[in-house]
Parts: sequence; structure tokens; C-alpha cells
Amino acid sequence: MKILVLNGPNLNLLGRREQDIYGTVTLDEINNSLLSLAAELDVELDFFQSNHEGELVDRLHAAIEHCSAAVVNPGAFTHYSYALRDAVAAVEMPVIEVHLSNIHAREEFRRHSVIAPVAAGQISGLGIDGYRLALRAAASLANTAARGAVGIK
Amino acid sequence: MKILVLNGPNLNLLGRREQDIYGTVTLDEINNSLLSLAAELDVELDFFQSNHEGELVDRLHAAIEHCSAAVVNPGAFTHYSYALRDAVAAVEMPVIEVHLSNIHAREEFRRHSVIAPVAAGQISGLGIDGYRLALRAAASLANTAARGAVGIK
Amino acid sequence: MKILVLNGPNLNLLGRREQDIYGTVTLDEINNSLLSLAAELDVELDFFQSNHEGELVDRLHAAIEHCSAAVVNPGAFTHYSYALRDAVAAVEMPVIEVHLSNIHAREEFRRHSVIAPVAAGQISGLGIDGYRLALRAAASLANTAARGAVGIK
Amino acid sequence: MKILVLNGPNLNLLGRREQDIYGTVTLDEINNSLLSLAAELDVELDFFQSNHEGELVDRLHAAIEHCSAAVVNPGAFTHYSYALRDAVAAVEMPVIEVHLSNIHAREEFRRHSVIAPVAAGQISGLGIDGYRLALRAAASLANTAARGAVGIK
Amino acid sequence: MKILVLNGPNLNLLGRREQDIYGTVTLDEINNSLLSLAAELDVELDFFQSNHEGELVDRLHAAIEHCSAAVVNPGAFTHYSYALRDAVAAVEMPVIEVHLSNIHAREEFRRHSVIAPVAAGQISGLGIDGYRLALRAAASLANTAARGAVGIK
Amino acid sequence: MKILVLNGPNLNLLGRREQDIYGTVTLDEINNSLLSLAAELDVELDFFQSNHEGELVDRLHAAIEHCSAAVVNPGAFTHYSYALRDAVAAVEMPVIEVHLSNIHAREEFRRHSVIAPVAAGQISGLGIDGYRLALRAAASLANTAARGAVGIK
Amino acid sequence: MKILVLNGPNLNLLGRREQDIYGTVTLDEINNSLLSLAAELDVELDFFQSNHEGELVDRLHAAIEHCSAAVVNPGAFTHYSYALRDAVAAVEMPVIEVHLSNIHAREEFRRHSVIAPVAAGQISGLGIDGYRLALRAAASLANTAARGAVGIK
Amino acid sequence: MKILVLNGPNLNLLGRREQDIYGTVTLDEINNSLLSLAAELDVELDFFQSNHEGELVDRLHAAIEHCSAAVVNPGAFTHYSYALRDAVAAVEMPVIEVHLSNIHAREEFRRHSVIAPVAAGQISGLGIDGYRLALRAAASLANTAARGAVGIK
Amino acid sequence: MKILVLNGPNLNLLGRREQDIYGTVTLDEINNSLLSLAAELDVELDFFQSNHEGELVDRLHAAIEHCSAAVVNPGAFTHYSYALRDAVAAVEMPVIEVHLSNIHAREEFRRHSVIAPVAAGQISGLGIDGYRLALRAAASLANTAARGAVGIK
Amino acid sequence: MKILVLNGPNLNLLGRREQDIYGTVTLDEINNSLLSLAAELDVELDFFQSNHEGELVDRLHAAIEHCSAAVVNPGAFTHYSYALRDAVAAVEMPVIEVHLSNIHAREEFRRHSVIAPVAAGQISGLGIDGYRLALRAAASLANTAARGAVGIK
Amino acid sequence: MKILVLNGPNLNLLGRREQDIYGTVTLDEINNSLLSLAAELDVELDFFQSNHEGELVDRLHAAIEHCSAAVVNPGAFTHYSYALRDAVAAVEMPVIEVHLSNIHAREEFRRHSVIAPVAAGQISGLGIDGYRLALRAAASLANTAARGAVGIK
Amino acid sequence: MKILVLNGPNLNLLGRREQDIYGTVTLDEINNSLLSLAAELDVELDFFQSNHEGELVDRLHAAIEHCSAAVVNPGAFTHYSYALRDAVAAVEMPVIEVHLSNIHAREEFRRHSVIAPVAAGQISGLGIDGYRLALRAAASLANTAARGAVGIK
Repeated sequence: MKILVLNGPNLNLLGRREQDIYGTVTLDEINNSLLSLAAELDVELDFFQSNHEGELVDRLHAAIEHCSAAVVNPGAFTHYSYALRDAVAAVEMPVIEVHLSNIHAREEFRRHSVIAPVAAGQISGLGIDGYRLALRAAASLANTAARGAVGIK
Repeated sequence: MKILVLNGPNLNLLGRREQDIYGTVTLDEINNSLLSLAAELDVELDFFQSNHEGELVDRLHAAIEHCSAAVVNPGAFTHYSYALRDAVAAVEMPVIEVHLSNIHAREEFRRHSVIAPVAAGQISGLGIDGYRLALRAAASLANTAARGAVGIK
Repeated sequence: MKILVLNGPNLNLLGRREQDIYGTVTLDEINNSLLSLAAELDVELDFFQSNHEGELVDRLHAAIEHCSAAVVNPGAFTHYSYALRDAVAAVEMPVIEVHLSNIHAREEFRRHSVIAPVAAGQISGLGIDGYRLALRAAASLANTAARGAVGIK
Repeated sequence: MKILVLNGPNLNLLGRREQDIYGTVTLDEINNSLLSLAAELDVELDFFQSNHEGELVDRLHAAIEHCSAAVVNPGAFTHYSYALRDAVAAVEMPVIEVHLSNIHAREEFRRHSVIAPVAAGQISGLGIDGYRLALRAAASLANTAARGAVGIK
Repeated sequence: MKILVLNGPNLNLLGRREQDIYGTVTLDEINNSLLSLAAELDVELDFFQSNHEGELVDRLHAAIEHCSAAVVNPGAFTHYSYALRDAVAAVEMPVIEVHLSNIHAREEFRRHSVIAPVAAGQISGLGIDGYRLALRAAASLANTAARGAVGIK
Repeated sequence: MKILVLNGPNLNLLGRREQDIYGTVTLDEINNSLLSLAAELDVELDFFQSNHEGELVDRLHAAIEHCSAAVVNPGAFTHYSYALRDAVAAVEMPVIEVHLSNIHAREEFRRHSVIAPVAAGQISGLGIDGYRLALRAAASLANTAARGAVGIK
Repeated sequence: MKILVLNGPNLNLLGRREQDIYGTVTLDEINNSLLSLAAELDVELDFFQSNHEGELVDRLHAAIEHCSAAVVNPGAFTHYSYALRDAVAAVEMPVIEVHLSNIHAREEFRRHSVIAPVAAGQISGLGIDGYRLALRAAASLANTAARGAVGIK
Repeated sequence: MKILVLNGPNLNLLGRREQDIYGTVTLDEINNSLLSLAAELDVELDFFQSNHEGELVDRLHAAIEHCSAAVVNPGAFTHYSYALRDAVAAVEMPVIEVHLSNIHAREEFRRHSVIAPVAAGQISGLGIDGYRLALRAAASLANTAARGAVGIK
Repeated sequence: MKILVLNGPNLNLLGRREQDIYGTVTLDEINNSLLSLAAELDVELDFFQSNHEGELVDRLHAAIEHCSAAVVNPGAFTHYSYALRDAVAAVEMPVIEVHLSNIHAREEFRRHSVIAPVAAGQISGLGIDGYRLALRAAASLANTAARGAVGIK
Repeated sequence: MKILVLNGPNLNLLGRREQDIYGTVTLDEINNSLLSLAAELDVELDFFQSNHEGELVDRLHAAIEHCSAAVVNPGAFTHYSYALRDAVAAVEMPVIEVHLSNIHAREEFRRHSVIAPVAAGQISGLGIDGYRLALRAAASLANTAARGAVGIK
Repeated sequence: MKILVLNGPNLNLLGRREQDIYGTVTLDEINNSLLSLAAELDVELDFFQSNHEGELVDRLHAAIEHCSAAVVNPGAFTHYSYALRDAVAAVEMPVIEVHLSNIHAREEFRRHSVIAPVAAGQISGLGIDGYRLALRAAASLANTAARGAVGIK
Repeated sequence: MKILVLNGPNLNLLGRREQDIYGTVTLDEINNSLLSLAAELDVELDFFQSNHEGELVDRLHAAIEHCSAAVVNPGAFTHYSYALRDAVAAVEMPVIEVHLSNIHAREEFRRHSVIAPVAAGQISGLGIDGYRLALRAAASLANTAARGAVGIK
């Protein structure tokens, strides 16, 4: 079983910029931490980061073929990319939305996610732990045969 | 180390009412699942559910003395109880807000949490798994000496 | 068949305070009037008034066991108590919301009821008559076997 | 004593269209039910239905001469006809606004009534029962000599 | 030269209802006062009042043939009748909007006129005097050959 | 098979007023153009224009008996006539909403249609062509047995 | 009897700037036209123009002693000067608000007057004629002994 | 003469939590300071603090019997407790609303008080001094026989 | 004459995902249907679909050289891509905006198009027929020499 | 130690106009009352009233040299004078904002103060007592060496 | 060629107050810096600062006679002085609006300029450099004969 | 020292399309003009234009290594690209936002920049001059060692 780990714009700079907001952990360190957990959970991971909205949409589409769930940090696209939202809705696999920071404790525009209504769940404010929890949730949902069966709206 | 598990109004009916929204799991079953995980994580749990806003505030205050973190599902208080919000801010321990359902996929009023800006993090839409993930997060945060040190805003 | 008659905050002062708005009838007089009508309609009544949101929620929960419908004047809770709203939705019995005064002819904040979308119906502006009409409606709805069958949305 | 029963646009189709929302009862059946109750209450009824705003206004004006109260279901005019509102205010007789469906549980635009602030009271969500309750209220208010004397705002 | 004097819904009740708001002058008295002034200004008047939006629109259309300007009190249509607005815009003659009461000192909804942006001017709050001033303005504008030439936007 | 072609307020003036917005084509010319196309499509047409909201509602009701679809230009009623909206919803035949001008490029209030959510589709900005396209769409939808079967929401 | 004619900011430039909006008439020409009418109406006039809000307030205060009414074009102060509004309310004499241009056909911010709710009436869009009509209205209101007696709200 | 001193949710933690916002003074110290001033003003004090909205309402009701005025710091209830607001309105004694911090210099939601419109006055931002000033005001108002007589709205 | 047919994000999945909303027709089937119609109308077609906003903008720019009109389904970009809007405005050829589903009957955010104000027209809710009608409109507009000449705003 | 007492527009009319709102006390009487209290508190007072925003700003600037605190009733400037707000912020001395009437119980626009966020505190609704309390607060704050030290935000 | 340099309220305190926001440069230093640049650009400068809105308006009017352009820092008037806006529009010379601080990174109310829509351009956030750039822009625009010719809207 | 000059979507068409809004100057001409100025200022320039949001973000990231400041015209991304905003914030070099046209004098949506709050400053409405001024500002800020030292917020 494979799970897509998708990271959106500016997350490639993680750990090197604005450390007062996002901490000092790099995206590579997050990914490595997820790989350890994946081994423990017996799932494979497929990593992808891009600053291009279209590439994130394309990758989600491609995941229909070989992934069973996704962990997605949409970065700033969280707040306006209805294209990404429609992609999440279209792929019809469990998608866990994750944010490093507590988006509800920052600027007003960050409090609204256009992705969340079509995601299975959302985790925010828990840093690298949040990614790990999201992977646990994604694996758990993917392990159940039909998403509908487990979906608690 | 002890962690408070606080459940707000109507959650006592869980599993018996509105199963299309909240599923069939009861609050007792959630608590039992948390107890197992707590054993694994080597933390103690302190359970409390109430339909009274004041009692939830009182209990949070009391937790200052003997708890290191809290998992809180504020139920409907999520959307208007600034009293509970101020209590969460005042206790100055890591509080993880959790929701069984995906509050962003329901009525408009459920999309806004007055608690979230002062919580350490928020987890929604993941059912009983969400509670378990929240407990993991709370234990992790409580295990670090100073909340500020780990806080990724 | 038993019907719960639930009155919210400040209604205990009815008839003694702000008579220009609420008239001179006391809550006891309303209840007595309802008792006469109940006899006529062959239903029993269960009266409860409280200034505590949590107690109103608790009482609604308790009514699941022994009541078939409810007449509820939520008082000021009408406008913000999502906890009460969730309780009304959860008990899954016909609830008639009633207001002594015409809430649409008063302050702006009184025009919006957070309870109404989950109540069976709403009656406002008709004073003590409104309670009597609400009791008639509650009895009528309770008399039909399944709420869904009679529900005209 | 005569009471006007005024029904607005599309209510002529009642029972034949959109039965999932409005049920299967026709306007004639409602009127017949009201006639029975009117006999019981010893009042006469004056029925009028129109899809024309101006005709409803004209009829309300005409009622000044021979009616003591009115039961009005403004249909869609509820939400925008300030002309009808002004007519209700002008005729200075008790007007009970009634809606078959629970307007607070439907589309956003149906939750606001421009008529309600000048009506004596409002009843919604109770189907044909709602009309009967409205007639009771109208008769009761008309039976008191001065509207002001009974008006609990 | 003929000028149309158009009065909207409920203005037929003028002077007999809600005298605290609209005073005791009747529409006939206003019209007679306008006739005297018309003689003085050497213009003819064409009076029309209706509670039907469609009839007001029809009459405005008809006025294209034989009137040079119009004095219009749209009554409650002021606030929502875009059909009347479009008619005012379409007839392309100077239209003076007049209101007996000071619409800016009443309910919020009365402060916005959908007619005003396409009228030549607006006069409010001056009672019967307002009609007389409006007639003066209409006659003055009609007396200039091209409306555009005199229009001070 | 017959199709209703319904035109709302002020459209009778088409081609004679405000030609900079609506062009020089008259309603008769539009209707003649539609008649040619109707012959080609083998459908009959039923034309009606009115400045009276109630008459448009009445005509839609009447069409239940003898029409299979409708092409409707609601004119200014587009923006506020919930009565017309309810009629469109009630007749339960495919209704194509059409606008000569691009309503999204004009005043703010013209950008919102209260009819559109219950219409099958909407065409705007294409002038007389828009009517012809609307007739094609109406005929196509009417030709399928059940509207639900073809309805792409 | 004396009437104050008060003109606000930038009106001193009238007729010399932005002639496409305000026309070519200068403030002196308006004042002269008012003087002729004043002679006809047998009233004296007191002219004052200032670009200083405080001076306009001072002048209104001073008018309590020797003026019976006022014609006020507040210019841009119309839209935000609550100080001027309070002065208008405080002087308790009839104040007619006048605008040369049709403020409802211009920028959004010009459509709202903070002065209007405390003025006796408002006249807009009628250019120099508007001032003359305002003077007629002011004289008429001042001629009645008590403002309250003539005030049609 | 007795004056009620009512403190709402979380104020029991005063001086021990969030000292950067609320300072280091405890509620006991405030109460002691008020007792000294009360002696000076020759009034008795009745202290009550609760995190329960219902208890605050109950206590206000009870005060009708033995108190002449109240000093109330509603804490977070300031911003949403219409139940408390209605209680303040119902008791019909002078109530002075007091806030330790300057609520206008904090989060947006803290700037709006639902209590203020029915309080006699409001004092904010002045810390422990604010309570003392509030007590002076309450005593002064209570000393006048009728609240209406002294009320400067 | 060549016409560009541009499809935005997620439309590549058409017919394979979310069939309850978008039906079972694939984009290839739509394109084939358009090719047949194009032959009939004697125009050439240039197809392009992309999930990348920038590629859609680039393609529109490129079309300046060899296309006379465009049929554009912007997908989710409809609701926020001002970059695409500016491109549509810049290319200065007739652009017909088309939507398979009735965007006015879906989520609130889908009701607003940032493209529409600069498009020639908009067609929504008519499924594959909508594309065909859009092609007819585009061909018709392109066939006229100057867009301005045919443009009915 | 000197304290500035600054009064804004229309307060010179106090006690002579709109006595139903502001009472019968004149500004001189308020000032005299403050002088008595000042003697008691051993502070000097510097009085200034103006209807000119610029003069109030100038006077605040001048106070930097010789005053230690200020009591300011900004009158209507409360609601829009960001210039005054910036002056209050710039002078960096404790400023107590005071209002005679309860601004929260009047028109909507009076409920918002642009000054309050930069004032030390605000007192409203307590009439002449309010000024006296404000002077006490100002003296108390000025008596502490550094404003920051005493500021409870 | 002469250019007006106009500074609004509180800018006289520049460099002496709130140095964390506005820096330590005084207005005199800014003016001297501008004088050097003016010599370089071969233009004369006319300096004026006032805390009085009316004086700024008067000075702009006076500049019509002897200035060709203006550099204006409206201070707090930026956000509400429609009187100043109208003056800027009326003088019909190029006006460059300048702000020392980045108004978009401060309080919400500072993000909206009522002056900007009628200014030629706006420069913000660049401190004393901003003034120098503004002078360059003003000189450049003034050097072209007709403002319209160079205006890129 | 190198400065990045970044241009967003549709700016490649500059000078060839919509000349009434953007003028006839091409992007190449702007760049050449900047090159001359750069020589004068002794800085190097790095030009990049793209219609792809992702490419703009990538280029900003890349600039961290070799650029000291940036001049950015985000085109339509100004109004919604939070991804670009986050990139501007992340690169932590001075960024000057520039717009050819006066965005405050155009459509409502153009008045709000999501980039501005994280830019050092913004220049709008000054055409090609604006770019030159922006380059001066960027060079000046880059010349100071630490951005914080010069930043006047």
C-alpha cells in the first residue's frame, strides 16, 4: 500500500527561512521521520513537493493509479486553490490535510481552508508531529476497504 | 504524567443519536481506546464530560494542579464559548482540540472555532482515531519541558 | 403521553419585570393554562425552567426516556446556544420553539434563532396563546407515530 | 366577525407540486379544514389566493371594511415584498403570518421575513396545523377589543 | 406639456392610516394642490396610483407618447423594484423621485432606493411640499429641450 | 411538442430604448427568428411578454398542461422575484434562463440571479443568438423523456 | 425671518472645476438666484461657505440666535462628519440638505449621508434648482411655528 | 445600602495567570480594596464570582431583593451572553460594567459588549482603579431614588 | 477560421470521476462532438486542456495569432484566476465561458465568476450541449468582422 | 502636576440642547465640579473645548510640554477622527476617554470609538460623574512615574 | 516650476514621537532633503504642514494659481477625509500620495486610502526615500504639458 | 550587487494590448530604461517574466543566492497569490511592489494587494517612472547592510 505525501509552495524552504514561525526542521527531516513511521506501519511513501499548483494537481491525478491515500500540506494554496480542492474531491481517496503551524492563530486569511471541506480530516499546529499523525490517519483510512464505510463526516 | 480528556455538551449521547453524523462509537468506547493507548504511552488519563460550560471551565482550572496537557472536544462550545477559550489560554498547558466529524464539511457556523487560536493544535474529521492522535500529540507536547520550546506557531 | 415544557433564562421573572415587553402573565399562570389544555388534549406535562444552559440540555436528554415531544422557549439561548441546538437535534423528538414576544420586531440580534433550523416549528409573538398553540402542535406531532411521516419541512 | 385568509404566489399549486417540501395537502383541503375550525370558533372566513402582489395588497386594503383579523401566508413575497409589508402595517388589524414549511431549515434567503416585524405573530413549520393554529390566534386577537391591549411585542 | 404623477403601493390609504408617520393629508388633497401649481406653471398633469408594480411600469411606458416628465413616489417599490427602475431608465424622460417622509430617518431598508440612480433627482422628508417642489423640478427639466443639456449628474 | 417563450418587464421596449445596452433588435424580430428555428427543430412556440410578475407566474403555471420546456428572460425579475423562482421550481419542466446582455459586466445587482439555482441552465451576453441557443437547449432537454435523466447539475 | 445658507468644502470652486460633474454655475450665481427668490418669499438670507468643518459647526451654533431654518450643502462632509450631524441635531431648527448632483448615481461612498437622518429633508440631483427648492422648503417650514407640528417624518 | 460585586469566568485566576495582560493583582486584593472604599462610601458589598453563566444570572435575580446596584465584570460573557444581558435588563437596578483591561485594544471579538446597551455605564482599561471607580458610580446612582431620574443615556 | 477550445483544471478526469455531478461524458467525447459541429459550421478547432493556470494563459496569448474566438471552460479557475481574466481581456477576441454544471445550483463559491465580466457571454448547466451552443456562439461572433459591432453588452 | 481636560464638538451647547439625551448640566458646571475635585486631588487643570478637529490636535501636542495626563471627551470625533487618534497615540501620556451618555445604547455608529484603542481607558454613560471618575483615573495614572509600568492593557 | 509639498496631521511631531513606527527623521530633515533634490531637478518647492483639514484644502486650492504638481502625505486624513479627496480631484494637477510607513502592514483601517483613487500615484513604505521618489514623480508629471497625456491609469 | 526584476502574468503583452489602460510602452522598453538607470546606480539586474505563479515563486527562491533586493510587478497575482506572498516573506530581502496603473482607481478587486503587507514598499500609478523609482528604492535598501535597520514600517 502506497501513500502520497504532497507538499505545496515554499515548503522546500522549510527550516531555512522564517524559523520563528515554522521551526528549524527541514522538509527532508520530516520526510525521513515519515519514512521511519511508514516502515513501522508497513506502507510505502511517495514524496512530492512543488511550488506549482498545476503540478500538485497533476500528481494527485496520477496517484489515482497507485496510491490509496494522501497526506497533503497545501501551503498557501490552502486558502484559494479551488483547482486543488477539486482535484482532492475528484481522486476520491482519503486525503489528510496537515499544517505545521496553528493556522487559526495567525493572519485572518490563513484561518479559512478551501481544501478542508473535501478532505477526510485536518491536523494543524503540531509541527512535525502533525505529519506523523496525518500519516497514521491516512494509513488507517486506507486500510479500510471503502472510504465511505469509515467516514465520520 | 497526567492528561485531562475533556468532552463537552451532547457528547454523552455519542453512538446512540445521530449516528449518520457521529458514527456508532460511544464515549465509553473512545475512553477505553484512549486508556489502552495511554498505557502504551505511559501517561495517566483524567476523564470528564459535561453539558455545563462552567463545569468544563472549573475542571480546566483544577487541572492546573495535576495535569500536564489536555485533549478537549468542546462540542458546540467550540463555536461561541469565549469563557472556555479564556480558560484554555489561562491554564497555559498544551491543549489539543479534537472533533470527531470534519467541521469544515458541515454547517457554516461549525467552521469557526473560538478555541483554536489558543489551542496548541486542532484535529478534525478522523473519528475515534482523531482522539488517539490527539492523545499522542498531547503526550508529546507534555513531555517537552517548556511548551514555548516546542511550540511551532 | 408526556410532553416536556422547557423554559430558559429569565423566564422565571415573567410578569414581574419588563411588563411593557412581556406582559403581566407569570410563568405559573402560563403553566396552569397549559395544564388545562393538556387535560383537554389528554397529555401529561413535565415542566422545567432554568437559567443554566447545561441544565436545559440535561433535561432534554432525560426526556428521551419519557417524553414524546417538547415545547421550548429558549429565552436568550435562542440566539447563541449551539449546545441547546445540538441537544434538540439529538433528542429526535418533535420540538416546538415558542416566543412570547414577536422576536422579529425587536433588536436585530433577536431575529436570528440558532434553534429554529432543528426545531419542528416556531411560534412567536402570540403571548400565552403561543404556548397553548405550541402545545397543540406538539401533541399533534407526538400523536403521529413517526416524526418523519408528518414532517413538512 | 370575519377573518381574511390570504395566500400568496404558487400556493394554488399546493399538494400537486414539490410534495417532498410542501406535502400532499391541497389549498382547498386547508381551506376546508379552516372552515370547520371557523365554525367551532364562531367566525366567518374570507378566502383569497393570488400570484399577484398588487391583488394581495388590494385585498388587504379592502379587508379594512369587513374583517377583524387576517391569516396570511405570503409565499415567496415573505422575503422581499415591502409593499405587502406596508399594507399589513397600514391595515392595523392583527395579522398572523403562517408558513407550511420550517423556513429556518431551508435556503438562506427563506430565513428572513420582511413581513414579520409588522405582523402580530408568526407560525412556521407546522403544515396544515399551522394554519389552524394561526386561525385560533387571529380569532383570539380579534376577539379582544383593542389590538394594543393584547399585544405582547 | 404634460407631466405624469405616479404613486405606488399603499399611497391610496394616505391620510387615513399611520398618520403619525405620513400625516393627515390625503392623496386627493396632494393631487389638488398639484393641480393648482400646475395651472400656475402652465403644465397639464396625468395622475395614476396603483398597488400593482406591473401597472406602474405599463403607465410609465405609455407616458413616452404624451408626457415630458414624471413625478414618481414609488412607495415601497423604492427599495426593491428593479423592474420599475428599468422602466424609469427606459422612458428616458426626467423623473423626479419623491417621498413624503424622510426615508433616511426610518428603518434601515428604507434608506436605499434602487430607483434613485436612474432618476434625475430625489426629494424626501418634505411632505406635501415635497410633491410641489418635485413638480416644479419636473416642469423645469421638461422645459429644457434636451434632458442631457440640463442634467447635472 | 410546445415550448413556452416568456419575456419579463420592459422587454416590450426592446430595440426602441437604450439601444447602447440592448441593441436595435425588437422582441418581434427575436420571436420571428425563434419561429424559424422552431420549424427547423420541429417544435411549437408559445410567446408571452408581461411587465406583471403575477402574469408571468400564472403563465408558467398554465404551461404545465401544454408545454414541455420554457425559455425565460425574466428581465429585472431575475434579481429579486422569488415568486417567479418558486414558479420555475414548481412547474418541474426544463427552464432555460436567457439574458441579452452580459449581466456579469453590468451593475453589481445584475450579477445575481435568484432564478438560476432552479433553472436547468443559463445563457447570457449573446443577444438574439442567446435566445436561439436557449431554444435549442430547451428543445433538446424536452426531447428526453425525464428531465432528471439528462440533468447535469 | 432669516435663513442660513451653508456650503461646505470645495463648493467655493463651483463652476470653475469639474464642470462635467457640477456644471458651470458658480456659487455666487447660486447665491444671487437665492437672493431673488428670498425677496419673493420675503425672507432674509445669511450666506456662509467654508472648507473647515469646525467653522461650519460654529456657524450653525451661531444661527440659533438669529436664524429660523437652514439650507445646507455639506459637500464631502455629507459622508462622514458626525460633528456636523450633531450640530444639525442640536440647533433644532429645520435644516434642508441639498446636493447639486445626484449623489445616488455616483461613487458608492456618496450614497450615504450621515446628515440626512437629522435633517428635515433632502434634495439631490437638481442643480441650482435644488437650492431654490430647498429655500422654498426651508421658508415653508420656518413659517410654521413649531417644527414638530409640520414634521412628517 | 448594599451593592453586588459580580465577577464572571476565569476572574478567579486573576493575578496568577496571564499577568502580562491582567497584571498581578488578585481578585481578593481587588475585593479588599473595594471593601475599604465601601466603608468610606458607607455601603455594604456582596461578592460573588462564578464560571457558570447560570449562577451569575441567578445571583443577579436574587439581588433584586437586597441590593440597590451592581458592579459587574462579566469576563468573556461580555461578548455573547444574551442571557446575562437579559438579566441585567430585568433587574432594573443600576449596573456598572467594568473591565480590567482596555477591551478596545485587544482581539476584535473583545470590542463588542452585549451587556453594555443595558448597563448604566461602562469602565474599561483602568485595572483595579476601574473597579473602585465603578463602585463610586454604582453608589452614586443607587443613592438617587429613581434610576430614570439620574440616567443620562 | 479557427476557434480555440480551452479546458481548465480537472476536466481531463471528466466522465471518470464524480459522475453524479458531471455525468459520464468524457472530454474526448465532447471534443469529438465539437469536431462534428465544427465541420458543419465550417470552422477549425484547436483543443487544449491543462491543470496549469500559466499554460492556459500562455495558450490564450498564442491564440492571438491564429484564432478568431475561444470557447473556455475555466474549471475551478473561474472563481479566482484574475490572471486568466486579464488574459481573456487582453486577447480581445470573443470568448464564450462555458460550464457543464449549473454553477448557480452548487456551492456558494461557484456562483461567482471572475472571468464572466470580460467574456462575451456565459453558458452554464447544459452539459455537452452547452459546449456545442458555445461553439455556435463563438463561430457566430467570430464571423462578424468587428466584435464591437455585434457585442450586446 | 497638570491635567488637560479636552472637550470636542458641540459640547459647548451642553445643558442647553437635547437635554433628553445629555441632561441639563452645562460644560461650565462640569468644569467647576472638576476644579473642586482637582483641588482635593492636588492637581491643576487645563480646560479646552473646540468644534475644530485641528485645534484639538494642536492642543494635545502642546500638552506634551506641560501636562501629565488628559481627560478627553472627543464628542462626535470619537467615531471617525483618526487624526485625533494619532495625536492621542503620539503624545504618549495617559488619556482617559469619557462620554456623558452610554454610547452603546444609542445609534449603531456611536458604538465604535477609533480613539479607544490608543487611550488608557474609557468611561461612558455616567454623566458628570464620569468626568470626575476620569479625572481620578488620570491623576492616578499620571502619579505613577512611567505609564508602561501601570498600564494594564 | 513650483511643486507643493503638503503634510497632514501629526507629521509635525515626526522624529520625536513613535520612533519605532516612523523613525527618527524630522519633517525639517525631510524638507531639507527635498530641497537638495529640487535644486537638482530644477523645481521650486512650497512647504506646508497642518493638523487642520480645512487648511490643507485651502492650500491645495491656492496652489492652483502657482503650482504644477503636489506631493501629499495626508497623514490620518488618508483614511476618511473625502473633503481632501475632493480637493485633490478639483485642483486637476498631478498629486503624488506618499506615506512614510507601509500602510498595508499596519492596522486594518490604514490599508484603505480615500485619496488614492483621485491621486496620480501612491508611494508607501519607503520612508524619507519615498518623499524623494514622490518629488521625482511629481516633477516628471508636471514637466509634461497635459496631465492626461502622461496619465497611465 | 544584483537586483531581481520580476514581472507577472500578461505583462509580456505590455504595449500591444489594452493600451488605453497600460499605455504603449513595452516590457522591453521598460527593461532597457531600467538597465540605463542600473548603470547609473551601479547595480546589476536580473530580468524574469512569467505567466506561471510557480515559476515566479521558484525564481524568487533562487534569488536568495545571488540577489540583494527585488522589484516585483505581480500583475493579477497581486490580488490572490498567497503563494507568491509567502515567497516574498520567505526570501527576506527588500521587495518593492510596483504597478503601472493606479490600482486604486480601477475595479474593486484590484484595490487589495495580498503582497503589500510583506513587501518593503509599494509604488503604483506612475507607469514606467514607477519601475525606475522602484529600482532606486530597491538599490537604496539593498545598499544598507541590514534591512531591519532601514525599515520604516
